[in-house]
Amino acid sequence: VFVLDGTTVVEAAGQAGIILNQPCGGGGTCGKCRVEVLEGAPEPVASEQAVLSPAELADGWRLACQMTIRGHTVITVPPQARFFEQKILVKGRERAYSLDPSLRKVCVSVPEGSTDDPRSDMDRVRDAIAADEYLRVDLELLRALPGMLRRSDNRVTFILEGDEIQNVESGDTTDSVWGVAFDIGTTTLVGSLMDLRTGQTAAVAGRTNPQTHFGDDVVTRISYIESHDGGLARLRARLLGAMNAIIAELCESAGIECESVYAATAVGNTTMSHIFLGIDPTSIGHAPYLAVFREAVDCRARTLDVAINPDANLHVLPNIAGFVGSDTIGVVLASGMAHDDRVQLAIDIGTNGEVVIGNRDRMLACSCAAGPALEGARIQFGMRASEGAISKVVFNDTIETSVIGGGAPTGICGSGLIDAVAQALDCGLVDPTGRIVAPDEVPEARRESLVEHDGQPAICLVPAERTRMGQAIVLTQKDFREVQLATAAIRAGVQVLMSEFGVGLDELEAVLVAGGFGNFIRRSHAQRMGLLPGVPHERIEYIGNAAATGARMALACRSCRAEAEDISRRIEYIELATRADFQMHYMDAMEFPSGDH
Amino acid sequence: VFVLDGTTVVEAAGQAGIILNQPCGGGGTCGKCRVEVLEGAPEPVASEQAVLSPAELADGWRLACQMTIRGHTVITVPPQARFFEQKILVKGRERAYSLDPSLRKVCVSVPEGSTDDPRSDMDRVRDAIAADEYLRVDLELLRALPGMLRRSDNRVTFILEGDEIQNVESGDTTDSVWGVAFDIGTTTLVGSLMDLRTGQTAAVAGRTNPQTHFGDDVVTRISYIESHDGGLARLRARLLGAMNAIIAELCESAGIECESVYAATAVGNTTMSHIFLGIDPTSIGHAPYLAVFREAVDCRARTLDVAINPDANLHVLPNIAGFVGSDTIGVVLASGMAHDDRVQLAIDIGTNGEVVIGNRDRMLACSCAAGPALEGARIQFGMRASEGAISKVVFNDTIETSVIGGGAPTGICGSGLIDAVAQALDCGLVDPTGRIVAPDEVPEARRESLVEHDGQPAICLVPAERTRMGQAIVLTQKDFREVQLATAAIRAGVQVLMSEFGVGLDELEAVLVAGGFGNFIRRSHAQRMGLLPGVPHERIEYIGNAAATGARMALACRSCRAEAEDISRRIEYIELATRADFQMHYMDAMEFPSGDH
Repeated sequence: VFVLDGTTVVEAAGQAGIILNQPCGGGGTCGKCRVEVLEGAPEPVASEQAVLSPAELADGWRLACQMTIRGHTVITVPPQARFFEQKILVKGRERAYSLDPSLRKVCVSVPEGSTDDPRSDMDRVRDAIAADEYLRVDLELLRALPGMLRRSDNRVTFILEGDEIQNVESGDTTDSVWGVAFDIGTTTLVGSLMDLRTGQTAAVAGRTNPQTHFGDDVVTRISYIESHDGGLARLRARLLGAMNAIIAELCESAGIECESVYAATAVGNTTMSHIFLGIDPTSIGHAPYLAVFREAVDCRARTLDVAINPDANLHVLPNIAGFVGSDTIGVVLASGMAHDDRVQLAIDIGTNGEVVIGNRDRMLACSCAAGPALEGARIQFGMRASEGAISKVVFNDTIETSVIGGGAPTGICGSGLIDAVAQALDCGLVDPTGRIVAPDEVPEARRESLVEHDGQPAICLVPAERTRMGQAIVLTQKDFREVQLATAAIRAGVQVLMSEFGVGLDELEAVLVAGGFGNFIRRSHAQRMGLLPGVPHERIEYIGNAAATGARMALACRSCRAEAEDISRRIEYIELATRADFQMHYMDAMEFPSGDH
Repeated sequence: VFVLDGTTVVEAAGQAGIILNQPCGGGGTCGKCRVEVLEGAPEPVASEQAVLSPAELADGWRLACQMTIRGHTVITVPPQARFFEQKILVKGRERAYSLDPSLRKVCVSVPEGSTDDPRSDMDRVRDAIAADEYLRVDLELLRALPGMLRRSDNRVTFILEGDEIQNVESGDTTDSVWGVAFDIGTTTLVGSLMDLRTGQTAAVAGRTNPQTHFGDDVVTRISYIESHDGGLARLRARLLGAMNAIIAELCESAGIECESVYAATAVGNTTMSHIFLGIDPTSIGHAPYLAVFREAVDCRARTLDVAINPDANLHVLPNIAGFVGSDTIGVVLASGMAHDDRVQLAIDIGTNGEVVIGNRDRMLACSCAAGPALEGARIQFGMRASEGAISKVVFNDTIETSVIGGGAPTGICGSGLIDAVAQALDCGLVDPTGRIVAPDEVPEARRESLVEHDGQPAICLVPAERTRMGQAIVLTQKDFREVQLATAAIRAGVQVLMSEFGVGLDELEAVLVAGGFGNFIRRSHAQRMGLLPGVPHERIEYIGNAAATGARMALACRSCRAEAEDISRRIEYIELATRADFQMHYMDAMEFPSGDH
């Protein structure tokens, strides 16, 4: 590719269609974007000298986020630096709801006016539609109406959104009533195309949120927005590009025009909703972490450049607080827990962890600053659940692994990590404090797994000769600390909510595990390391991508929107940061469970 | 002025700032735009040969709407061809109403969020405003909110329109709450600037509707739209230009910025409302004369390029039918007749005539195709009520006249016309059939008034030596026929409504005369010629420009808007064209009253 002098390697790679990992958001601190410069390597800068060893620098390794192009350059991107599309969970459990979409189509033959019937066009239209409520119209529709009636011999189809006539089409188009529901995750975007005549999902498609380019978590993205002019618009444009690509893919697979899609809903964490709507999320990034808005937002698709029918209504579900978004509303909606007598706990593990507890009488929610460690970030060989990732680890006589896509592994993703940590605890390679024990403390048979990596103790999962890049895949002492911190945050959040709600483990009638990540983990291993509470296994239920399910429900059912708004107002947000009991639980949770129960 | 080859003289004159009369809409049939070409006169075209005499053509007279410029040309525009600003009536009677505008301003100090109060910005705003209803906001406001709160130290003023937060301003701006009310007449535009803290009208300004350039009445303007690509946009642009000039004038006289005006209302006949909103009025121009919409329309000022605050709400009052517009709703609103026990009749004489009868129980309305004769159009020496017009005629020993602006007259306007016709009837110069009688049938003293004009009998009002253009001002036989037709249309409409409502003259407790025109006429003369029904004089009340009053009421009072909508639905529109009894009454009314009662 040709780039201007001074372009960073990350940008140049992007132009060549190669997206690089940037967990630290291009800060030059994590070293995940290291690339090998074969020709034209410049002098390393200070941040590169801090992250890379002198030998690596001498071999031409540089950080793609720090190095700028100054002339002809040849670079090799190793698989670890490359950002691969990951396995995306698109389905969830849906409770029963009535099909009553906010979007409706009504085909009518508008009677001709006459001197005996001198009603205005709009009055004849309203009477022909015979809606229960008074239908609002906007100026655009009034302007379009006379011509449309004339051209269509008065046979037209009105597109109704709630109590508003949104648009008019020639002839009878009621055989095509389409909507799209989005789950805008920090890492993952999922879109579902729904046939609103039947409530059936016709197609589902997912993509990685291309904002990942600007940082792995919401905090780095907010920092980017704060520190770059036009940063919000840039992040928004990236997001919209991917969403519109999903829309195009959905419509193509269903064989329809994007213009036929007349409704959209979206859920996301609060920062994603703000960015999607073009609202500055800066205040979410700093204590006291406040959102600009909480309520649901409705606007026309054209306002947001969403590539469906420009007049279509777009409904963003309400959020709860700065770190508990409409995706959590979606989980509560899909689970039906807000209508249930039973006390249930829902845990949505994404890049962050949100926890909700409650029943029909009371609901509490909190956000656990778990960070992205459980998704593979901040782990030496951690990676997303994409091709080449170890997704499952079994400690038999030797350590065995399953790799996504087969073949030799490149790293390890969250589910593999949980397997490895739980079993390392069970077989005594790691003690409850998270310390990798000394070789003389472990049974002979396991001793060979203990290795050293960069001067720190580590557990070898796959030896160098069986990995893709010829380097052993290990879990270091620091990796265990990262997992400990993430797990402790969620575990302490669960404890605080349970204690605030006044229930013990016995009274928790169900633990619902939501999120793309949750679906691939093994219950017993997650419980062993303390990530899920110690209820009987049968009370743990995976409810899949329930956030996306909630978005679909809001698309298909008017009363679900009202329910979402009700949940958003009703649910009590518990701010963990200021609670003394959270600090106490967090300290306790830092130690892995002993394995006795 | 420099113009392109082929430009019409009308357009060229417009560029020079001279607006010409065009009652026929530039059709080349009325001859009112005749100008004298001193140099560069082209060969006359067929339409000019039909309208102008060979002598006139030889002297260089041409029709400005037909002649095109083909090179250096020198033209003199005679006063008759020139369109003068006319006397515009701006005030009306207002019944009492409570000051409760849809537009309100609320200044609040929004409390800072904290970890103890993690509500979103919008939730804190809503609670600070503490409105009775749930306030809607749009995306633009959410986008602007965080920055505005930050810049204003959380002290801001919200602009509320109904149940919507329309905008936010820094600091306390509640000392400035302005709205503007428009009466969009076919001929005349009137704008009122209102201080919505007090309900006081701060300034009023009027202009001639520059669409007059495209024809005197709505039918010619609709024809123009039908026959010209972009015609609607062109007429709309002309209208907006004048409205925005009025706004600038109002704001200047009140010493405020146009941006401070946050609300607008408008009334107008149905065609004007359509054109103002950019809605094709074509269907109003042909039987069955249907409007596209009847209901009130709300939109943002920026949508219509109205030069007040772009976010301001603009409310166009509802209409009744294709030829009974929101101006009539305004009259009913201002008169209070829809809430009165008494049966009242309202007549609004503008370019057309609208009649309403009724009380709190039932209301009927009709439109009388009176045409613009009573405004001076289609009358040989007719003109608008502008400088040089005979506005009053008194038959003493000789015929005496008052002239607007003093000096020698140029023509005669509506009020003078009614004086002349009524007194010509009284002294027997004209018989009840409208025929100018033979000289031997009139008293000696009056005989000299009888003259001939272009071969037809005529009555001389001002001899040639006392007029501005050195030509006698006469009323011809054809002029009397025009007045007869116009008067008969209104009189028959009144008869039909009275008979449909089931009341006689005795039961009519008031006759309300509205409209700029009505204010300047003499009751007895209007009754003598049959224009107003023969009730005792004291029951006739001039209510002035009640349409504009209605627009102001809708600006100052939310419940007046609801009442307007209610009137619009309740009022029964009577289509005269298809009623046998109208034809009968019309035939009867063609004869002037005998003068006995």
